[in-house]
Amino acid sequence: MDYRDAGVDISAADAAKARIKALAKSTFNPSVLTEIGSFGGMFRPELAQYREPVLVASTDGVGTKIKVAIEAGVHDTIGYDLVAHCVNDILVQGALPLFFLDYVALGRMDPDKVEQIVAGFARACAEFQCPLIGGETAEMPGTYAEDDYDLAGFIVGVVERDQALPRGVQEGDVLVGLPSAGLHTNGYSLARKVLFETLGHRVSTELPELGTTIGRALLAPHRSYLGALEPLLARDKVRALAHITGGGFAGNLPRVLPEGLGALLRRGSWDVPQLFRVIQKGGSVSDEEMARTFNMGIGMVLVVSPSDLHDVEHSLERRAETSFVIGSVVRGAGVSWEE
Amino acid sequence: MDYRDAGVDISAADAAKARIKALAKSTFNPSVLTEIGSFGGMFRPELAQYREPVLVASTDGVGTKIKVAIEAGVHDTIGYDLVAHCVNDILVQGALPLFFLDYVALGRMDPDKVEQIVAGFARACAEFQCPLIGGETAEMPGTYAEDDYDLAGFIVGVVERDQALPRGVQEGDVLVGLPSAGLHTNGYSLARKVLFETLGHRVSTELPELGTTIGRALLAPHRSYLGALEPLLARDKVRALAHITGGGFAGNLPRVLPEGLGALLRRGSWDVPQLFRVIQKGGSVSDEEMARTFNMGIGMVLVVSPSDLHDVEHSLERRAETSFVIGSVVRGAGVSWEE
Repeated sequence: MDYRDAGVDISAADAAKARIKALAKSTFNPSVLTEIGSFGGMFRPELAQYREPVLVASTDGVGTKIKVAIEAGVHDTIGYDLVAHCVNDILVQGALPLFFLDYVALGRMDPDKVEQIVAGFARACAEFQCPLIGGETAEMPGTYAEDDYDLAGFIVGVVERDQALPRGVQEGDVLVGLPSAGLHTNGYSLARKVLFETLGHRVSTELPELGTTIGRALLAPHRSYLGALEPLLARDKVRALAHITGGGFAGNLPRVLPEGLGALLRRGSWDVPQLFRVIQKGGSVSDEEMARTFNMGIGMVLVVSPSDLHDVEHSLERRAETSFVIGSVVRGAGVSWEE
Repeated sequence: MDYRDAGVDISAADAAKARIKALAKSTFNPSVLTEIGSFGGMFRPELAQYREPVLVASTDGVGTKIKVAIEAGVHDTIGYDLVAHCVNDILVQGALPLFFLDYVALGRMDPDKVEQIVAGFARACAEFQCPLIGGETAEMPGTYAEDDYDLAGFIVGVVERDQALPRGVQEGDVLVGLPSAGLHTNGYSLARKVLFETLGHRVSTELPELGTTIGRALLAPHRSYLGALEPLLARDKVRALAHITGGGFAGNLPRVLPEGLGALLRRGSWDVPQLFRVIQKGGSVSDEEMARTFNMGIGMVLVVSPSDLHDVEHSLERRAETSFVIGSVVRGAGVSWEE
């Protein structure tokens, strides 16, 4: 008996590794000191410009969005989703990315599929200047069904200690929302249940309301707000940022507000994308459940001083970034809504 | 319909988060600037003692060792395995740990189980002074069977650039092996197939050769060699280190040796633990397949100058660390064996 009989193919793993190496290399910058394949990735951070550099690290997965990718046979965007998600997660503390690592676990090692997955990571890592300096690809028959897989991503960034967000949020600050590209990476278990089970759709079903197929609408890549927000962070124009992920507004906005302050959001102040309406109607989901499961069309919320609002809106416009004033910071706690 | 109907229980997730928070906090040191629950963990590294600090990052999983943990209902050691594995992976480049993050994905959110898993992470993080500054716990019904889960770990450490290993390995250098505690985290798919399918054992089966149950033997925690090796690294007594993981000696030793040099290992120069013999005999596995799948009883190999050998052995002895001279560095490539 050998390892292959037990469902683990080391030769396939070696083939996958060679392809990963080339993709990862395309993301490198001069701070990367090693090649993929060493035990650990080596990175010499440029910290001279920082008085007191603080590393900010985060890890995440893409949840069951992967199930949609598998169903649709599209594996080269899900890695992009994960990097964008991780970049946003440290951006909300004011941190800019240094490097990224990925974990890919599959039921069966398929070098083609692994290459597609890692191509997604690499495209995002290149775009966000966040080199892919390491990773693990594990074949785990028994844990994952043959065609199934899971991903985890890990990012490290850096921020000047006294520039870290949130900082100085006050009553009366304005909440500015930036549009999401869809579900991003949250709420897929509910969305899949409604769309595929209750409504009986398939990934290939064209919905006129969506102007595309269910599969394409669900796989729309998670947006990173790094490009839009970096100039504002550099000019100290943002007091706090909330990445609207699992838990929605209620799960993500209050935790960047100081004790004693809450968020008052105005219903109808932004366009809720059709995809959310299709899910809500199809599953008879309450407004509350929608709001704590999905981003409802807002992927990032900026907390901005009223005196900086015009400047912020102008900067976003110049970067072709749509924005909505969606509410304000008020005395209280949590999230409340006004019509 | 709500998120819970779709198999995702946000309340259970919140309960799990509260327990994780307390466990993670027990691993903190003064460099940790945030609490778990922020979007990203913040860490202010003490780098004043380094002339040119290089960050070393690695990610890994524990493979299908998790399947044994699940079968045995023992969830509080598998996180320890993962941290120890990650610590070793950066140690081989000479790096000492700064911080760790974990990714836990489950079929069903079970706060008790999550607490046990994270307790394993926390115990190891405290032992290796490597704070657990962040993580993600994802409930993914459909990807994982109800009682199933997977883990990924991410570590960041630091090394002085000109002290990074490997460095200065020469022909004639001595290979010193440190004993593993068992399979560590590699080869479990093959081991499980032989022990549970071919031989029909269960985790509770007592094997006289092992002096314990199959389950306990298989779950013996991955050893970290940080404590044993840190003093030797500080005194610059090691030229290279190889963590013997997936791929065995052939997959891990050559990659720390310079072009033109290989490893000559002496058969019988260390004790191959009974567990490996049971697997080899039970599955009629060839010597070659055993050696490229398992660590065969050696978890870490030191490459040492002959003139430092006595000093190294003495230092290891003082730390109650067994060691074996298992071979030497020779002209050539890869791994060869002598009787």
